[in-house]
Amino acid sequence: MSMIEAERQLDLDALRATINRKLEHYLPEPSCTPSPLAEAMRYTITAGGKRLRPLVLCAAHRASGGIPDENFWRAAAAVEYLHTFSLVHDDLPCMDDDDLRRGLPTAHKKFGEGMAVLAGDALAVLAFELLGETGNCDVVIEMAQAIGARGMIAGQVGDLAAEGCEVSLAAVQQIHRCKTAALFRGCARGGGLLAGVDDQRLEALTVYGEQLGTAFQIVDDLLDLEGDTEQMGKRAGADLRRGKATYPGASSPDRARADAREAARAARQALEAFEDRVALLALVDLAVAREA
Amino acid sequence: MSMIEAERQLDLDALRATINRKLEHYLPEPSCTPSPLAEAMRYTITAGGKRLRPLVLCAAHRASGGIPDENFWRAAAAVEYLHTFSLVHDDLPCMDDDDLRRGLPTAHKKFGEGMAVLAGDALAVLAFELLGETGNCDVVIEMAQAIGARGMIAGQVGDLAAEGCEVSLAAVQQIHRCKTAALFRGCARGGGLLAGVDDQRLEALTVYGEQLGTAFQIVDDLLDLEGDTEQMGKRAGADLRRGKATYPGASSPDRARADAREAARAARQALEAFEDRVALLALVDLAVAREA
Repeated sequence: MSMIEAERQLDLDALRATINRKLEHYLPEPSCTPSPLAEAMRYTITAGGKRLRPLVLCAAHRASGGIPDENFWRAAAAVEYLHTFSLVHDDLPCMDDDDLRRGLPTAHKKFGEGMAVLAGDALAVLAFELLGETGNCDVVIEMAQAIGARGMIAGQVGDLAAEGCEVSLAAVQQIHRCKTAALFRGCARGGGLLAGVDDQRLEALTVYGEQLGTAFQIVDDLLDLEGDTEQMGKRAGADLRRGKATYPGASSPDRARADAREAARAARQALEAFEDRVALLALVDLAVAREA
Repeated sequence: MSMIEAERQLDLDALRATINRKLEHYLPEPSCTPSPLAEAMRYTITAGGKRLRPLVLCAAHRASGGIPDENFWRAAAAVEYLHTFSLVHDDLPCMDDDDLRRGLPTAHKKFGEGMAVLAGDALAVLAFELLGETGNCDVVIEMAQAIGARGMIAGQVGDLAAEGCEVSLAAVQQIHRCKTAALFRGCARGGGLLAGVDDQRLEALTVYGEQLGTAFQIVDDLLDLEGDTEQMGKRAGADLRRGKATYPGASSPDRARADAREAARAARQALEAFEDRVALLALVDLAVAREA
């Protein structure tokens, strides 16, 4: 590892530690909410994770000249709550039916299906409470559009519908755009909006977020195919067994690797207008060169 | 029916017709969201309902001197989307397991469980998108708190936990406060906030909403005990069969009727500071003197 790589690493690790503290801080106390609900919310949030979406928000905010205040951290926690909400619901038996997530039993395995539905709901609502508290309604709208019926949720619908079907690469790309890239894009734009970025740079962050999300999801599909259950903390080969539409499945592993590299390149290229782009660049590396 | 009653009725009917138009208007077009998702969202929203929560928002807004603009209607639609989101998830097999709602098959019966979870999610997210679009972050926060882990969702957790248990009247009252009164309170306060009401009147609307919600839920429990499946559009006696904690069950039907009347009286009394309180008063009558 070069000196620069080591410094970037340290920086992201420090950011991630702050994000983890904030994620715990904003959870409801068991004293003011029913304890199984509070426990289920805490369980899903503290189970780990790369915290990539709040990191994207942080890096975009910094690149746009933002100085993190408490409202900023509320938004950073909110985007991870939104991501976790989607994982908890996607893991349900009536959806992907997964029993392992981040190396632990999924929420419905641990707390029952009803509580998993409600814990997911409560995380989404908490996210919007925190986004409202930032006082920036544009960020509320941005995140709602990112995860809503034209964004992440549409992607999950497409994912379910494609199960067991012969699906074109174009269809997989459309699913990925909704399922994954929409929230990455929302995080990149949200960081910019919170820093009051100008329209031109907001557009650059839009491209960055979309391309980063695209690269991330292609690599995710490749890892499911080639990765290791223990290292990933979720079952390898699950997509294949379930007949899921995947990027390598609809093209080839070689094509998938090439397209992930190309998306990563496009994400990096979008950043030329930003002087302080070290963290944004480091996240591209993190999204593509990972083993979990 | 007296002249005044007839006029009130007409007024609420006209309001309800506008609300129904707006509820359809803000739904996603099948052209820009996967069609089964758009269809499931539309199905649950157009299945009918008294639209009591948006009516409370409207009446509180009017009493506070507000003039309805498009942002106001966005909020009115949002609170009904939030209510419907909760019904769709509560009806799921892993929760209340209901197969009939508003005289029609429940969402999961019609579209499958996975789609019902996602349609509920999408309605909640759409609600927060519209609330964000009002440009009033206080209303975003208000509604998130009303339905979140200390509000409506906490009530549903309490409801599930109390199934088949011997439950005190105090415990039932606490469940009702969260499950139902929190959103009514949020609607009353939300209407006031959107009209820029002063603190004293906001406090009066808080009491009104809580008491109205309390009266409404006690009557709901009585109707489940004594009502008619066809008239209600959901199965009568379902609470009893499922061993649910109900107000008459934890006290007696007579006590329940007396407490509903007392809550209605308290709701009316809270309105003394408002000159234009006709609609708010009419909603109290509607909440207690109903057969469905």
